[in-house]
Amino acid sequence: MTPSILPPDESWRTAALTRLDTLTKPLGSLGRLEDLAAQLVAIRGEHLTAPLTKAAYVFAADHGIAAEGVSAYPSAVTHQMVLNYHAGGAAVNVLARLHDVALHVVDVGVDADLSGLDGVLHRKVARGTSNMLRTGAMTEEQLAQALAVGMGLADEAAAAGVQIVAVGEMGIGNTTSASAITCALTGAAPETATGRGTGLSDQAHKHKVDVVQAILRKHPARAPLDILRTMGGFEIAALAGMVLGAAHHRIAIVTDGFISTAAAALAVALAPLAQGYLIASHRSEEPGHILLLNHLNLTPILSLNMRLGEASGAVLAMPILDSAIALYSRMATFASAGVSEASA
Amino acid sequence: MTPSILPPDESWRTAALTRLDTLTKPLGSLGRLEDLAAQLVAIRGEHLTAPLTKAAYVFAADHGIAAEGVSAYPSAVTHQMVLNYHAGGAAVNVLARLHDVALHVVDVGVDADLSGLDGVLHRKVARGTSNMLRTGAMTEEQLAQALAVGMGLADEAAAAGVQIVAVGEMGIGNTTSASAITCALTGAAPETATGRGTGLSDQAHKHKVDVVQAILRKHPARAPLDILRTMGGFEIAALAGMVLGAAHHRIAIVTDGFISTAAAALAVALAPLAQGYLIASHRSEEPGHILLLNHLNLTPILSLNMRLGEASGAVLAMPILDSAIALYSRMATFASAGVSEASA
Repeated sequence: MTPSILPPDESWRTAALTRLDTLTKPLGSLGRLEDLAAQLVAIRGEHLTAPLTKAAYVFAADHGIAAEGVSAYPSAVTHQMVLNYHAGGAAVNVLARLHDVALHVVDVGVDADLSGLDGVLHRKVARGTSNMLRTGAMTEEQLAQALAVGMGLADEAAAAGVQIVAVGEMGIGNTTSASAITCALTGAAPETATGRGTGLSDQAHKHKVDVVQAILRKHPARAPLDILRTMGGFEIAALAGMVLGAAHHRIAIVTDGFISTAAAALAVALAPLAQGYLIASHRSEEPGHILLLNHLNLTPILSLNMRLGEASGAVLAMPILDSAIALYSRMATFASAGVSEASA
Repeated sequence: MTPSILPPDESWRTAALTRLDTLTKPLGSLGRLEDLAAQLVAIRGEHLTAPLTKAAYVFAADHGIAAEGVSAYPSAVTHQMVLNYHAGGAAVNVLARLHDVALHVVDVGVDADLSGLDGVLHRKVARGTSNMLRTGAMTEEQLAQALAVGMGLADEAAAAGVQIVAVGEMGIGNTTSASAITCALTGAAPETATGRGTGLSDQAHKHKVDVVQAILRKHPARAPLDILRTMGGFEIAALAGMVLGAAHHRIAIVTDGFISTAAAALAVALAPLAQGYLIASHRSEEPGHILLLNHLNLTPILSLNMRLGEASGAVLAMPILDSAIALYSRMATFASAGVSEASA
């Protein structure tokens, strides 16, 4: 079910680090920018120049679990926000335009008829998942279909020459799904992996923890595809599919917040070599996000207490990644600039 | 000696935060981007749009203290790096071009004749400071002249409509000066405020700590201007002057690493209201930098283990600040987009 994935090319990583050491700066003084540039070069297996060819994918879907009152917002907001993306007014629209990132909004399961909406990618699996307190969130067929949506879009991105993708989502109720996935994958307790989502009160938060606990009891199977089918969302499955497909095509993947990182963690559970293609954009306010970043051994680029989703943090990290590649490819060398190197 | 400085406009800060709460995102979900946007609006005292009009100033000067063997690089590198900036090959050149920041390189005290170099701003006070182990780093007249360089350039930036400046430096030996300043300002011990600069061995680092200790004993006066005159550098004094001048003109100041933050701390010691105009770009690897960020109550935007100086970190933060203003000014509101707000 998962596409073939090769690890990033270590000879290209070494070549990039060697080149960085010849540039007019003290050794290693660009810090993590050097590691990021070398990772991108290793992922692509070739010399890179800036700006990178960048795309962002926002997968939108509704969740049966929203009926349990786990969000501060009604499910209708998923649909409303897709209309907002379509009109260009959301945070991710603003950031994508500013940083020259091609933005794609994918309806993979919104509980509304969006078929008349030009410019949205219509890949609807169903109008929302089932309530995972009662049954699995999706059927085997729906899971396969949602995974294929992400893999197919990765194929299209590769064909379009995209070098790096930002992945994000919109789906009222999906932090509950991500919390359950985090507990199932890492063994964390629901209290430590369940946050306030878009802004819950203390009492509503306690209720959400109880719901996550009940989901974990209802669905004891812990194989990655079982977790995804029983506790996931269509957007989470599509995100996991895109991570697998992008890694297959040697496209770097910039994760956003809690939900996209949960999807990436599932992808890595299915195909461990996908890990080398991941770049964490930011550390969000969600406690489960930090558990997952540690689980994946990822250090985020930004730490700005964001908790919006919709790929906003991932797109915000793009100018930093373009900067890393610009420095790698454009700086003068000690030899070319006639600058003295450090004494031994 | 210091120009008049008014605090940022709190009514504009409140107006910006109020506007941010109407935008199509959960309340506060853009995290620090919201605080940064509101700070910029309060600094300018007006509605802002992106991109901001941005400039960077790299002040270059040599240091008599370099004769004590406190750097891994020879003093000649200061001159060589100015030639590299002039040729466009240094990290800050690459970043400034990528992020549309007007870059100005200022010779405020390089130990070389740069008068034939077009495009460099010639504001030389002297060919390097005196060795501060023997005498004050500069005379009263030189201090006044270097401060005036920075204030004058802030006047020019204001006249050119610049809204935000990135400030940085180049000067072999200047982390020793910054460490001494940090100890003098904060009371920190030399061991905790002295780092490895551009890359010192254990033994060379111990020697540098001893030199900082000796500087502090040699110059016991602790008034800000005394600290700056006895332990500073011409680039540090010019940076402090630019911070004061920029704050006077309501221009936001993005500090870079250890040295520019030491200059900003001196400016705040001279004129406490300047603090409200400061934005810390990044947390560098220098331990003294972290002491100063805490002293100034600043939280940096980036944490990438950079330790290059030359305004590189400050310029790298510019796309994040442009992003904050773009979000503030361009996002749709709940009302305009027809999106439901959170339940109480």
